[in-house]
Amino acid sequence: MALLALLVATAWSVQAASYEAAQAARHWRETHERAILDEFVDLLRLPNPPQDPVALRRNAEAVSAMLERRGVRTRLLETSNAPPIVYGELASPGARQTITFYAHYDGYPAEPERWYTRGPYRPVLMSTALEAGGQPIPLPNPGWPTDPEWRLYARSAADDKVAIIAMASALEALRARQVPLQANVKFFIEGEAESGSPRLEQVLRAHRQILESDLWLFVDGALPSNRQQQLIFGARGFLALELTVYGPRQELDSGRFSNWSPNPAHQLVRLLASVRDDSGKVLIDGFYQGVAPLGKAELEAIAQAPSYDQTLKQELGLAETEGGARTLAEAMNQPALNVRGIAAGAVGAGAASRIPAVARASLEVHLVKGMDQRTTAARLIDHIRKQGFYVTEAEPSEGLRRSYARICRVEQKAGVNPVRTPMELEVSQRVIAAVEQARGPILKVPTTGPVPAVSAVAGVLEAPVILVPIANHDGNQHSHNENLRLQNLWDGIEVLAVLMALPEPAGPGR
Amino acid sequence: MALLALLVATAWSVQAASYEAAQAARHWRETHERAILDEFVDLLRLPNPPQDPVALRRNAEAVSAMLERRGVRTRLLETSNAPPIVYGELASPGARQTITFYAHYDGYPAEPERWYTRGPYRPVLMSTALEAGGQPIPLPNPGWPTDPEWRLYARSAADDKVAIIAMASALEALRARQVPLQANVKFFIEGEAESGSPRLEQVLRAHRQILESDLWLFVDGALPSNRQQQLIFGARGFLALELTVYGPRQELDSGRFSNWSPNPAHQLVRLLASVRDDSGKVLIDGFYQGVAPLGKAELEAIAQAPSYDQTLKQELGLAETEGGARTLAEAMNQPALNVRGIAAGAVGAGAASRIPAVARASLEVHLVKGMDQRTTAARLIDHIRKQGFYVTEAEPSEGLRRSYARICRVEQKAGVNPVRTPMELEVSQRVIAAVEQARGPILKVPTTGPVPAVSAVAGVLEAPVILVPIANHDGNQHSHNENLRLQNLWDGIEVLAVLMALPEPAGPGR
Repeated sequence: MALLALLVATAWSVQAASYEAAQAARHWRETHERAILDEFVDLLRLPNPPQDPVALRRNAEAVSAMLERRGVRTRLLETSNAPPIVYGELASPGARQTITFYAHYDGYPAEPERWYTRGPYRPVLMSTALEAGGQPIPLPNPGWPTDPEWRLYARSAADDKVAIIAMASALEALRARQVPLQANVKFFIEGEAESGSPRLEQVLRAHRQILESDLWLFVDGALPSNRQQQLIFGARGFLALELTVYGPRQELDSGRFSNWSPNPAHQLVRLLASVRDDSGKVLIDGFYQGVAPLGKAELEAIAQAPSYDQTLKQELGLAETEGGARTLAEAMNQPALNVRGIAAGAVGAGAASRIPAVARASLEVHLVKGMDQRTTAARLIDHIRKQGFYVTEAEPSEGLRRSYARICRVEQKAGVNPVRTPMELEVSQRVIAAVEQARGPILKVPTTGPVPAVSAVAGVLEAPVILVPIANHDGNQHSHNENLRLQNLWDGIEVLAVLMALPEPAGPGR
Repeated sequence: MALLALLVATAWSVQAASYEAAQAARHWRETHERAILDEFVDLLRLPNPPQDPVALRRNAEAVSAMLERRGVRTRLLETSNAPPIVYGELASPGARQTITFYAHYDGYPAEPERWYTRGPYRPVLMSTALEAGGQPIPLPNPGWPTDPEWRLYARSAADDKVAIIAMASALEALRARQVPLQANVKFFIEGEAESGSPRLEQVLRAHRQILESDLWLFVDGALPSNRQQQLIFGARGFLALELTVYGPRQELDSGRFSNWSPNPAHQLVRLLASVRDDSGKVLIDGFYQGVAPLGKAELEAIAQAPSYDQTLKQELGLAETEGGARTLAEAMNQPALNVRGIAAGAVGAGAASRIPAVARASLEVHLVKGMDQRTTAARLIDHIRKQGFYVTEAEPSEGLRRSYARICRVEQKAGVNPVRTPMELEVSQRVIAAVEQARGPILKVPTTGPVPAVSAVAGVLEAPVILVPIANHDGNQHSHNENLRLQNLWDGIEVLAVLMALPEPAGPGR
């Protein structure tokens, strides 16, 4: 009964605090839209392509200044040769919890010539989406009031500078309306997300002390096409491997050598066929071992999620989906092995009577909670050995080629571990309640695709992680004509405000 | 006993006639080398690339004139839009047999910029092979005597104008020395061999009456590296097919859709893996049905052939060959299924988290005597159906895609039937005896790779066919720096002389 009382008390305090924070954010935003847009446009004007350390550092400094202006104590976490991470702290005296907000200031590589606008780093405001006939609206004085369907076109408008401006605006709104924070709020804004966050684990380990947190919120990604707010509680792990199977030292005339010289394409197809059955079930020994089952809350969330499966099947021209009755939402929560590519010899007009010298395949594994990328890679390599192959990491020597009838080179290209924060956790329930108070019923997603930064944080810091996307689904992330719909920014400010004002658990804390 | 007497009589008459013909050819050649070379060089100066009908016709006219000068009655067999075939007849009064000599005057496409010499159609005489440090020798007066290691560099020097100059020279030698011919000799010199002789069957059917023959001798190809004269009694059949397996209408993000959207690369590898086992045995129902076993003579020939298998294994970096103890010579006489290429998605640096929209493979089948290309294609398609695929020849419609979970488009690219003239045939034995009289022990090869013209002749005219290569093995046929070693021309003239002077069978004829 004490527990129930506690939960009820928590629910009530979350409702009250979230209502207050959301209202504060909305009222403040409604009177400051021009200032918010101006600051956003300034941030978008800073080029942020990967591989440009000077440009990226300018972004880091601008983000740092934005946070400092809101009373956040910031510093740049440096790693040799990497763009700095903007780290910020806002202590709340007496708070027993710490929440870290993640975003990234780097942008996907832009192809300027493909942009309808004048270029990826020259923000243009449009009356609606380009595809819907959007027309330019003058900046910096777009007129008043703003229209929620207006869209700001620029690289990183959706991915992920909207997160930064929404964080800064939410914080400013709460401060202006004097809404008390019940958490120490931290900011962690990196500059290597579009490069796969390769040095993030190193940074996290080096700064583990200051990065301890009760919750990490990743403000990144996009909402679904029905525009419903969603929270995502995990990201699949990922493993990419390149396989090369070796035949004769050079291509041979098949008219002369077939039936005598081994053909690496045949060896490769028989290997790949052994890895997976027609339903998508992976046939590698131990592959599914340790997979953590979904909890009741996750199963309910999957069951309640709107399904577009039938529409998608039609659009994609599919008679059947893999694994029969499995829905797309269910499929996302199961491990998968996918052949990304195969190449051997030539097809079509280039095909000739040849036995290829090598056959290559690119494989990836999507891992779910309970699986480990290193263990999985080892099991896959074991499976290849069981099919009679000698496995090597390097180009095989002459001696090796003459010693082993089947040789498979396995190169590991990338790997991250899976993450899933159980929805049953008290903190998960509290976050759900807060966001629903601001935005109504939300979509609860147990797992999305791989996000290296999420895996790094969960792996090194072992903190609960939740993803809070706010951008529109049709914002052309990672493409040309990236854009943000204004209403998504306005809504995002409210969502982040309630999360910054997230009440502590009603009990004595963790 | 009557049969034995007949065979002995035949053997004796072959020996005597062949000795006479070979001696006549040698003596005449030794005193006419300059004239032979001049005529050969003139022929090589005529450009003969495929797709150039004007140039090809000039070659046909030159060949026709060469034969006419030796008393052959020629005509051009015309097919609409095809280079003409030079057909020639030299009747031998009272002869009960007819022998047709095949060659081709068209050349493989040349890449002039890759030639060491000034160009493919500017013949250059070299003191030996380029790779062995050959130096140019002035033309048209190369000095005297000629060296057998000199090489003439030009497109078609080896493939196949050497056959034409050797035929003309052999004929002239026999006439000059008044060696009697015991056969009506015909010439059939085509201009589409390098294009796969696509209209040859049509021509053969149209002119069946004049083309009836007791024996067709194909003077084309090259001798083995030990320079031993060889006779080849057959050519494998050939069948090329392009398979396309269809997945979603467009490439999909595998992070989102794997485990749900079918991946055509997986479907294709499982299909290909079902076609053939690790030893190269084809698993298609009925595939080997009807295969004609080799006769005693063929098995002996294979057993006696020198084997380079161990050397080749070393050179090619192979630990094992396919099918275990099978030798290269045995492998050539068995049907084979070879994957020429596979392409789906991307590998290496281009690989991304995608489910490919299509997966393609190029397959070929090598057929041996007793198999039919159409029946084999039908069996392969049947096999694909048994693996659960809907098979279509065209790009599948939307409706089809939504109706069938597995769709495989099968496009047949090329097909020719296998040919093998039994070595036990009386005419085969007579040809062997004649050539051995001129050149000593020869290599008897039951089957070589596919030769469309051989398949067309054997298929339409049902005549025995034997291939009589004379060019050197290292003549760079189908490559730049094509060349002919002079001694191969000199030897070739003797071989063709004995074949033109081939005695009739000793009995009452067929």
